[in-house]
Amino acid sequence: MFTVLAGGVGASRFLQGLVQVVDPSEITVISNSGDDVEMFGLHVSPDTDIVIYALAGAVNPETGWGLTADSFAVVDQLERFGYARWFNLGDKDLAMAIHRTRLLHEGIPMHEVVAGLVRAWGLGCTIIPMSNDPIRTRIIGPDGEIPFQDYMVKLRTDVEVRGVEFAGAEKAAPAPGVLAALRDAKAVILAPSNPIVSIGPILAVPGLRDALAHSRATRVAISPIIAGEVVKGPAAKMLQTLGHEVSAVGVARIYQGLVDLMVIDERDAALAPAVEALGMSCLVTDTIMSSDEKKAALARTIVAAL
Amino acid sequence: MFTVLAGGVGASRFLQGLVQVVDPSEITVISNSGDDVEMFGLHVSPDTDIVIYALAGAVNPETGWGLTADSFAVVDQLERFGYARWFNLGDKDLAMAIHRTRLLHEGIPMHEVVAGLVRAWGLGCTIIPMSNDPIRTRIIGPDGEIPFQDYMVKLRTDVEVRGVEFAGAEKAAPAPGVLAALRDAKAVILAPSNPIVSIGPILAVPGLRDALAHSRATRVAISPIIAGEVVKGPAAKMLQTLGHEVSAVGVARIYQGLVDLMVIDERDAALAPAVEALGMSCLVTDTIMSSDEKKAALARTIVAAL
Repeated sequence: MFTVLAGGVGASRFLQGLVQVVDPSEITVISNSGDDVEMFGLHVSPDTDIVIYALAGAVNPETGWGLTADSFAVVDQLERFGYARWFNLGDKDLAMAIHRTRLLHEGIPMHEVVAGLVRAWGLGCTIIPMSNDPIRTRIIGPDGEIPFQDYMVKLRTDVEVRGVEFAGAEKAAPAPGVLAALRDAKAVILAPSNPIVSIGPILAVPGLRDALAHSRATRVAISPIIAGEVVKGPAAKMLQTLGHEVSAVGVARIYQGLVDLMVIDERDAALAPAVEALGMSCLVTDTIMSSDEKKAALARTIVAAL
Repeated sequence: MFTVLAGGVGASRFLQGLVQVVDPSEITVISNSGDDVEMFGLHVSPDTDIVIYALAGAVNPETGWGLTADSFAVVDQLERFGYARWFNLGDKDLAMAIHRTRLLHEGIPMHEVVAGLVRAWGLGCTIIPMSNDPIRTRIIGPDGEIPFQDYMVKLRTDVEVRGVEFAGAEKAAPAPGVLAALRDAKAVILAPSNPIVSIGPILAVPGLRDALAHSRATRVAISPIIAGEVVKGPAAKMLQTLGHEVSAVGVARIYQGLVDLMVIDERDAALAPAVEALGMSCLVTDTIMSSDEKKAALARTIVAAL
């Protein structure tokens, strides 16, 4: 059994590879719900949906999020009622949010809602949100707190990140199945997601970091930083302004004590000794997932190393 | 000041005429909310929206409801989550429902929500839902109760109507402004809507029938039945199975004691004495509203008669 801690785009690409080399029924994804947001009164779960759409083969390949060939009639029309257009949710994507919101209003817990969405999309794996309780990632910028989607989408990450907080985390509990998935897994894989705002919120759920630290599973992390840069998203500049080294070593330091094996890109082979000096093994391989074949190859290499 | 009790399509056509001959700021519409329905967790107000779209010049002229050139991406996608496709709400139409639902969940009363929608569509008239409290029209058929939209849309009115009830009416109050609009109007016009399920729910709101009965306004009703038939909708067969005469006289009998003037179509001129025998005046004119000109002509004739 494989348990994968997952953020959005990077995680979804890794999972697209993993399902090619492991039976999906053996995969449990613990999904970041820290960037969930209420838009137009609807509950939107960007990271979870990215993973679902990607595994269903329906994700928009150009953006890495949203659905292929979606239209935008609803958000166009919502402008009439004064809604700003910065959160560009497509019509098909909105259908998912409408359905999710209806179920949540009826009192269905989030993990059951997500399980139903996974079934509706015909996926063979299990996806569990990290918590059924609301946890909201907020960026602390020079002028104060910024809700995560405002930072990501409205401000296009053009903010100096001075801190990050996970509002509500202290009162949250892991969703049913989360701790068992960490305890019973053969391997726990931290996907190549932003360690601060994608994996960070998951580890902020009370009990989760401990469960990972004490899991008997082999724990693996894949660095999202390659040659000092990130394939997608603000991880590199965020690490920098928060005082981390912008490298696979910087990522490994954040995960120190939580992972047994760090996977870094072959472009960073010279960093392997520094990673190993942190008390973990280091696997050097090609981590650029630019095709289905390369996604599968990365997953195969990691599974073989376990 | 003109106060119009309004259902859906017939009322919207009459109002399209009235705004051509009377300053819209002098018109208050009391709208039927008895056919409101929750679809996909969203609050949909079919009759109110028909009136808004019609007055905004945005209504789909082929159906009489919904918006011109709407698309159906969301309802298409919702089928994936198990929703039946019978309620064919367009994407632009859904935007209105999303906005309305958000405001209602935030605790904004329905009459304020509708006032905001009227402003958003740039209308000059006032539209007030009959009540802020939920009143749901139900059809009693041979096999029991049927929610109104199920009867109208899913079953395409192919049900023998044995009774009608307005669930919740006994506990409802008129929305703020409704009683004043009846009391202070120069004229109250019962639009050519279904007297049972469009005007009926409005009159079922406690206090409303009384306010109309005792209003000093000139009270006018336009028969939706012309030569024993109805232009649109199930009014004719509904009147029949409920034991009413399917004619302008049958409609006049339902409104006896509530209206001073009954407007009937010239095709029914022979019925004028029978209408007058009920203790009301009768105005015979062309009531078929097949063009903007004819809509205005009907409104002009009625306004002149007041």
